[in-house]
Amino acid sequence: MSHARLFLSDNAAPVHPAVWAAMQGADHADNPYDGDAFSAELDARFAALFGRECAALWVATGTAANCLALATMCAPHGGVVCHAEAHIEVDEGGAPGFFLHGAKLMLAAGEGAKLTPADIAAVIDPIRNDVHQVQPHAVAITQASEYGRSYTPAELAALGAFARERRLGLHMDGARFANAAAFLGGSASDAARKAAGPVDSLAFGFIKNGGMGAEAVVLFDPEAAAQVRYRRKRAGHLQCKGRYLAAQIIAMLDDDVWLANATHANAAAAEIASACPDRLMHPVEANELFVRLSDAERDALRAQGFAFYDWGAGAARFVTAWNTRDEDAGALARAIAAL
Amino acid sequence: MSHARLFLSDNAAPVHPAVWAAMQGADHADNPYDGDAFSAELDARFAALFGRECAALWVATGTAANCLALATMCAPHGGVVCHAEAHIEVDEGGAPGFFLHGAKLMLAAGEGAKLTPADIAAVIDPIRNDVHQVQPHAVAITQASEYGRSYTPAELAALGAFARERRLGLHMDGARFANAAAFLGGSASDAARKAAGPVDSLAFGFIKNGGMGAEAVVLFDPEAAAQVRYRRKRAGHLQCKGRYLAAQIIAMLDDDVWLANATHANAAAAEIASACPDRLMHPVEANELFVRLSDAERDALRAQGFAFYDWGAGAARFVTAWNTRDEDAGALARAIAAL
Amino acid sequence: MSHARLFLSDNAAPVHPAVWAAMQGADHADNPYDGDAFSAELDARFAALFGRECAALWVATGTAANCLALATMCAPHGGVVCHAEAHIEVDEGGAPGFFLHGAKLMLAAGEGAKLTPADIAAVIDPIRNDVHQVQPHAVAITQASEYGRSYTPAELAALGAFARERRLGLHMDGARFANAAAFLGGSASDAARKAAGPVDSLAFGFIKNGGMGAEAVVLFDPEAAAQVRYRRKRAGHLQCKGRYLAAQIIAMLDDDVWLANATHANAAAAEIASACPDRLMHPVEANELFVRLSDAERDALRAQGFAFYDWGAGAARFVTAWNTRDEDAGALARAIAAL
Amino acid sequence: MSHARLFLSDNAAPVHPAVWAAMQGADHADNPYDGDAFSAELDARFAALFGRECAALWVATGTAANCLALATMCAPHGGVVCHAEAHIEVDEGGAPGFFLHGAKLMLAAGEGAKLTPADIAAVIDPIRNDVHQVQPHAVAITQASEYGRSYTPAELAALGAFARERRLGLHMDGARFANAAAFLGGSASDAARKAAGPVDSLAFGFIKNGGMGAEAVVLFDPEAAAQVRYRRKRAGHLQCKGRYLAAQIIAMLDDDVWLANATHANAAAAEIASACPDRLMHPVEANELFVRLSDAERDALRAQGFAFYDWGAGAARFVTAWNTRDEDAGALARAIAAL
Repeated sequence: MSHARLFLSDNAAPVHPAVWAAMQGADHADNPYDGDAFSAELDARFAALFGRECAALWVATGTAANCLALATMCAPHGGVVCHAEAHIEVDEGGAPGFFLHGAKLMLAAGEGAKLTPADIAAVIDPIRNDVHQVQPHAVAITQASEYGRSYTPAELAALGAFARERRLGLHMDGARFANAAAFLGGSASDAARKAAGPVDSLAFGFIKNGGMGAEAVVLFDPEAAAQVRYRRKRAGHLQCKGRYLAAQIIAMLDDDVWLANATHANAAAAEIASACPDRLMHPVEANELFVRLSDAERDALRAQGFAFYDWGAGAARFVTAWNTRDEDAGALARAIAAL
Repeated sequence: MSHARLFLSDNAAPVHPAVWAAMQGADHADNPYDGDAFSAELDARFAALFGRECAALWVATGTAANCLALATMCAPHGGVVCHAEAHIEVDEGGAPGFFLHGAKLMLAAGEGAKLTPADIAAVIDPIRNDVHQVQPHAVAITQASEYGRSYTPAELAALGAFARERRLGLHMDGARFANAAAFLGGSASDAARKAAGPVDSLAFGFIKNGGMGAEAVVLFDPEAAAQVRYRRKRAGHLQCKGRYLAAQIIAMLDDDVWLANATHANAAAAEIASACPDRLMHPVEANELFVRLSDAERDALRAQGFAFYDWGAGAARFVTAWNTRDEDAGALARAIAAL
Repeated sequence: MSHARLFLSDNAAPVHPAVWAAMQGADHADNPYDGDAFSAELDARFAALFGRECAALWVATGTAANCLALATMCAPHGGVVCHAEAHIEVDEGGAPGFFLHGAKLMLAAGEGAKLTPADIAAVIDPIRNDVHQVQPHAVAITQASEYGRSYTPAELAALGAFARERRLGLHMDGARFANAAAFLGGSASDAARKAAGPVDSLAFGFIKNGGMGAEAVVLFDPEAAAQVRYRRKRAGHLQCKGRYLAAQIIAMLDDDVWLANATHANAAAAEIASACPDRLMHPVEANELFVRLSDAERDALRAQGFAFYDWGAGAARFVTAWNTRDEDAGALARAIAAL
Repeated sequence: MSHARLFLSDNAAPVHPAVWAAMQGADHADNPYDGDAFSAELDARFAALFGRECAALWVATGTAANCLALATMCAPHGGVVCHAEAHIEVDEGGAPGFFLHGAKLMLAAGEGAKLTPADIAAVIDPIRNDVHQVQPHAVAITQASEYGRSYTPAELAALGAFARERRLGLHMDGARFANAAAFLGGSASDAARKAAGPVDSLAFGFIKNGGMGAEAVVLFDPEAAAQVRYRRKRAGHLQCKGRYLAAQIIAMLDDDVWLANATHANAAAAEIASACPDRLMHPVEANELFVRLSDAERDALRAQGFAFYDWGAGAARFVTAWNTRDEDAGALARAIAAL
C-alpha cells in the first residue's frame, strides 16, 4: 500500500520522525504512569500555548478524550447537544453512553456539521423544564468539523456566550484541531487560541497529524481536571509507560510540528480543491474534501492509483495528511480537473 | 535514573529492541483500527500458542484487558469473586465498577494472593440464592499472583472444575503471565498452556515484559470475543493506529521473546532469593520478592544504590525485569546476604 | 377538581373500587416482597390470559416496566429502535439510558407514532455492521400508540417476523394496552392475544385504567424473567409489601375489570370522536383524541368547564378514562359539535 | 397467618388505619406525579419536624431512597463507607452499584453494626491518595442499625464533625428511624432531631412502621434535592398517582403517628428483652431483638405458635411492629423466661 496515492484518511498515516525520536528518547526507565518528567510538563506547555491556565492529560484515543471531558460537564441524567453527524454520535460505538453513564446525545442540525447558537436553541428550547425530559447540560462541537469546516473566532465567541447564558458546558472535539488552527492562521499560539475560542475543554488531536497513539485532553477548569485524572484510570486509560505518550505530544509541540504538519496537509487539500471548485460539497477549510464524482469518475481516479472512500452515491471523500506527497496532491488535482 | 540499580517495578522498564523494530516496521500506511495485517494475525498466533481456538485483541492496559474480559462473564447485577488484594480490587481505580456497570467484587482470602476452590466457596456459599443478594457470576485470579506466586496446572484444573460446577466464568489477570509460564517451564506452548489452564479468558501481559503499550485480551469463547470487539471501541480503546500495538505483541511472540524475557527476570529474582531464604515472606515463583528488612537494612541497601519500594513496616518489595542486569541482581543478592 | 369535566389524562384517575377492595383484602400480614400468595398467582394468570407461558412481575411504574424488559434484550453497547415520539424517548427522563447502562435509542418515524417494518429498516439498514456504530438489539413499540392508534394483529405479526429475521427483541409499551385490546375486541383472552401479538415482552398497564400503583412486566422468555427478578430488586422496585401491588393486578384481571374499564373509556372517546370527525388529527382507536381547535374554541370549551391539554398551537388532546362520566363525554361531544 | 404470634419482621405488617384513610382521602382526581397538594406539603412538613430547611420526596422503597440520596454525594468513581453488615451492602441486590454507576462500597467494622469515626478512619486512612485507588466520597450509617442499636446525638455529632473534616457526605438509612427516635425520646420534633443529628440526607422509613409503600428521601442540601428529582424519574420511581404516597407520609406525620407506632413497637421489644437480659446479643435500642437460643429452645417457642427467624446457629431474631399485640409480646417474654 505504501506506494499508492493515499487519500483514504489521515488516521493511519505513519508516525512523524520527530515523534519516533522523542519516544526513543523516553526509553530509559523512569516513574510509571504519569509520574514521568514528560507528563509533568504538559500542563505548562498547553497553558503557554493557549494563554490561560489549564490541565492537559494524555490518552490513547480521541474517543476517550472526548468522553472523559464530556463527563465533567454532563451528569448521567443530562444531555449533550451535538450535531447529528458528529463523530461522538455516529462513530464512537456508543462511547458517550458508556463514559457518561447513560446521558443522552441531543442531535442538532447545522450546515457543514457545524453548530450555531440558533441550531442548538432549536433543539433545547422545546425541552420542557421538568423531570420527564432530559435537560441539556453541555454542547459538543468539532473543530474542524466532520465536513472539514472550521469555526471562526467570532463563531466560537458566540457559542461561548450562548453556553454561558444557558449554563451549558462547551466541549470541542479537536481530532483535527491542528488543521483548523492552521486554517485560521497566525503563530502557533495565535492559531491555537483562535481555534479553541472560549471552550471549557478540548480534545486536542495529534494522532491524525503525525502522532502514534496520544491525544491531549485539555481542561480549562481545574476541578474538571481532578475528575478526569481519576476517570482516566477508571477507564483503563492510564498507561504505565505513559512517558511514551507524553513524549509524542511534546515532540509535536516542540518547534510547532503540530502546526507545520497541519499546514502541509491543508495546503495539499487546498491545491486539490482549487482544481475542482464546482464539485465541492463543502468549502475546504482544513484537510478534507467532499467532492461530487460520478461512479465512472471515481473508477477513473482509482484506475490511476488514487485511493479514497466513496461518500454515498455520486461523491467521494479525500483526506490529506502530514505525509501527503506534494506530487500526489498535484497529481490528484490534475486528475480531477481532467475528468 | 538509568544507572541506578532498579528493582522498583517492571512496569516502567524500557521497550525491548525487537519491539521497537517491529513498531517501526509497521510504520507504512495501512488500514486503520484493527484492519491491518498484524492485528489480523493475532487470533491464529494465540490459538497456536494455547492449542485451542481463541480470539485475541490488543488493548493499551491490563486494566482494560481485565475489565473487558470480565464484562463478558458477569452481568451488571452479578459479582466477580477475587482475592482481597487482587489488582482489580486494589489498584484499578474502580475500573471493574465502570466496565461491568456496577457489578460487585466479592473479596476472598487466600494464601499468597492465590485462590483455591475452598477460598471461593467460603465467599459464595453463604450468599442466599435470592434477589436481595448479589449472585456470583465469575471468578478472577492473577497469574502470577500479586505476591509473585504461580498457580500450578493442578491448581488451575481444580479451579476450572469448580467454576464449571458452579457455573462461574473464570478469568485470569496475566499481567505477569509470562513470568508464571517461565516458572512452570517447558517450550513456549507448553509453558503457556500450563500457566493458563482451563480459563475462559486471559489478560496476557506484555507491557511489563518488554512491550510499550499493548496487552492481549485472549478469549476462548467466540461469543465473548464478539462482545469485546464492540466494547473495546465503546471504551475508547480501539486505537486508529492499532497496527503498532499488534506489532508489539507479534514481536514478543516471535522467537518466544516473551518467554525468554520472563525467564531472564525470574532467574534474577531466583538469584536474589537464594541469598536470603529466611527473609522471604512468600516463595519466589516469578519475578517479585517480598523480603523482611528492618528500617536500617533498607537504608543500608539504598545507600548502596538499590532502588525498591517499602512493603509496609519491616519489609521491602523487589521486582526484576527483562532488562535487569546480571551484575545488579548479583550485587543485590550479595548485599542482602551481607546485612 | 372532582366536579370538573376532566379530560386531562387518565394517569391521575381515582382507584377503581374493586382495586381498593382487593388491597384491603391483602392487609393481613403475609410474606414480604413477592413471597405472598397474590404475587405467586401472577405467572399463571397472565399465561392463561395470553395462552402461552410467561412470567409476570409487578412494578410501580410503566417506566420501570419498560426499562426492565428492554434491558433483557439490549446489551449496554446496543440500541433500541423506537418511534421518535415514543414515551421512552420523550417522557421517561432518560430512564432507558439508566436501566440499559448507556444503550442508545434509535429514533424512527412512523405514522401515528406507530412503526412498520419499513420504518424500522429505514433506521437500521444504514447502520454499518462494524464496531464504530451502535448496532440495534431490540425494537420497542407502544400499544396503543402515543397518538391513540392501535396495532392490528396483522401489523404485529409483520413486526414479529421482521424482528425475528433481524434477530431483534420486540418489546411492547402497553401503558394503554387495555384500550388497544378493547378496540380490537373479543373476549378478554382474545383481545389480549390480538393486542399483544408475538412480542417478547409487554409492559401491561393497569394504573391508567383503575389501578393505584401497579403495572405488570410480562415476559414470554423465561431467561429474561430470571434477569428481571434480580434487576427489579437492584432498581429499588421490589416493594416489601408487594402483596398490595399484586392484589391490584389480580383485582383488575378478575371479572375482566381491565377490559370493561377500557371499553368504557374507549366508548367515551368514540362518542366524542363521532361529533367531530373532520377535526381529528388521528383516527381514534383507543381513549385519546387529538382534535384541531383554535384558541378561541379551546377557550370556549374551557369556559364550559372542560379541562384538557393544549396540543401545540391549534389543537388539543382529550383523554377519557375508566371513570369518565357518560354525561361528561356526551356534553363534550355536543360542545365540540356546536363550536 | 394472621393469628400466629408474628415476630418475623416489621416489613410485612398491615397498613395503619390512618394511612388507609388518608389514601382514600386522596382518591379524587388531581395533578399527576408529584404535582398534587399532598406532595407539595412535604418539604415544609419535614422542615418543621427537623427544624432546618430540607426537601422531602416520596419513593416506594428504602433501597431507592438510600441510593438516590447517596448518588448526590458520591461520584461514580468514588466510594461510600458503610458497615460490612449494612443493608445497602448485604440486602439491596447491588442497588448502590446501579444507582451510583459503579461506585464502590467500602466496608467497615463496628460494634452492633454501628460506625464510629475511628471505624471509618480504619478503612479510609490506608487508602493512598492517588488515582489507582478509589477515594471515599461519603459515609452511610443506619439508624437504628441492623442490630437494633441507636446512635446517640453525641455519636452523631462526632460522625458529622468527622465527615466535614474529611469532606465526606453523610447519609442515614432510616428504615427504622422512627424506632431510633422513639428510643431517644422527647417530643416528635425533639426525637427526630436527636435521631437525625447533622446528616446531609436521610431515608426516613414509614413502610415498616405502618405505611404501605412510601418512604421519604429527606435532603438537607437544596442542590441535592434538584438532582434527586431528576434521578427519581430516571429510575422509574416517579409514580403518576404519587398523591397516594404523599398522603401516606402525611398521615404518619399527622398526630405523630410515626412516633406513637414506633414507641409501641419499642415497648414490646423492651418487654421481651427484660425477660431475657442474659440471652441478648445486642442491647435492645429499637424494635429488634437478637437472642441466644438453642435449637431445642427455638423449637419449643415455635411449638407455642411464635414465628421468628433463626439468626445463624444458636440464636434467633425477633422483630416487633406497630401492630404487635401486647398479649403476644407478653406471652413471648414469659415463654423465653420459662425456657
